[in-house]
Amino acid sequence: MAQIPELSPLTRQLGYEFRDESLLHEALTHRSVASLNNERLEFLGDGALNFVIAACLFEKYPQVREGDLSRLRASLVNRDSLAAVARRLNLGDYIRLGPGEMKSGGFRRASILADAVESILGAVYCDGGFDHCRRLILDLFADRLEQQPDLQGLKDAKTRLQELLQSQRIALPEYNVTDISGKSHDQQFTVECRIDALGCTTTGVGRSRRKAEQIAAERAVEQLSR
Amino acid sequence: MAQIPELSPLTRQLGYEFRDESLLHEALTHRSVASLNNERLEFLGDGALNFVIAACLFEKYPQVREGDLSRLRASLVNRDSLAAVARRLNLGDYIRLGPGEMKSGGFRRASILADAVESILGAVYCDGGFDHCRRLILDLFADRLEQQPDLQGLKDAKTRLQELLQSQRIALPEYNVTDISGKSHDQQFTVECRIDALGCTTTGVGRSRRKAEQIAAERAVEQLSR
Repeated sequence: MAQIPELSPLTRQLGYEFRDESLLHEALTHRSVASLNNERLEFLGDGALNFVIAACLFEKYPQVREGDLSRLRASLVNRDSLAAVARRLNLGDYIRLGPGEMKSGGFRRASILADAVESILGAVYCDGGFDHCRRLILDLFADRLEQQPDLQGLKDAKTRLQELLQSQRIALPEYNVTDISGKSHDQQFTVECRIDALGCTTTGVGRSRRKAEQIAAERAVEQLSR
Repeated sequence: MAQIPELSPLTRQLGYEFRDESLLHEALTHRSVASLNNERLEFLGDGALNFVIAACLFEKYPQVREGDLSRLRASLVNRDSLAAVARRLNLGDYIRLGPGEMKSGGFRRASILADAVESILGAVYCDGGFDHCRRLILDLFADRLEQQPDLQGLKDAKTRLQELLQSQRIALPEYNVTDISGKSHDQQFTVECRIDALGCTTTGVGRSRRKAEQIAAERAVEQLSR
């Protein structure tokens, strides 16, 4: 077991004093170390983070529609943005990894860093409740939340594909569901996006027809932009 | 515009009195009626619901691992369970739909009902804050949360596939990533699951290699169970 580093510089940076510091230890323990690791807290923190950012964007942008709110959140909260937060907190110095992960430089890996941030949020929720957790989230993401979002750049893929084709006077794509699998409450849709004039066909898989269409459209945009 | 029905029977059932009842009206307005519809509130309510159920399961099952917590939540919160909640509240009588949706019986459609439940949760959060929203969620899902979950049935697909093959003394499947697309913070992995002895190959697409593997394994289990 790796030595436990002194955590007070970290809690100072977090601006949160744990009543039960073992929760913070758990949040900083990667699954390569112990069976009592940060995966459960990560599950909790991920939910808190997504909800708090959703509520913040909802309030901040009363005119923005659901699809754009959702894309805005995805652009704010993702592995890379979480890893950046982790680096600012020097989390790499605190995360406990198993020997294999240590050797391969796991403390620098974006996914490990990102997971640890979510775990800490889960730990703060457990220790101090929703308000403390919410405050920490808004604090950690303050810079990103203040930036003006590029809503145009966040337009959904079908819209962007349509505009791209219209600008070149090419007939619009056809979307067809080619497969539906899974049980009724957990279906997977496969959708094909065909642009006959360009001989371009892409597919997307998602939990709704709409989502699968968006993924197929995104891939078409990528292909056409190459 | 459809007539607005008297909402007090509904608020009685919800056990929540709105300070600003226009939020409840918004929550009951389908996008087929007006541009001010329930989609934004649904985005908010979906986040609240997923988080509150996550926190509840986290607390209730201290020994259950993250993967099982996640599957447990998916089995509790899905379109069908939300539609069942909606039917218990007779939401179909309150949702305002456009004429096209009215004619085609949209008030009975599971997705419209499910979305309205999430929208109401969003409206309660806006109107009364997190604690009221949380209480309503725990109340609406009380029956389901009390049922003992079948954790065995929730085992992940790779584990189930492995056990299925081992019971028939068949060599374990091979998983291979066949495609990675998308930008670095939003990648899509395509994974192939091959069971050579049975000539069975399935594919899965997901936002991580792990998820794509699980989807491919799920499909293999489905094929082998036919």
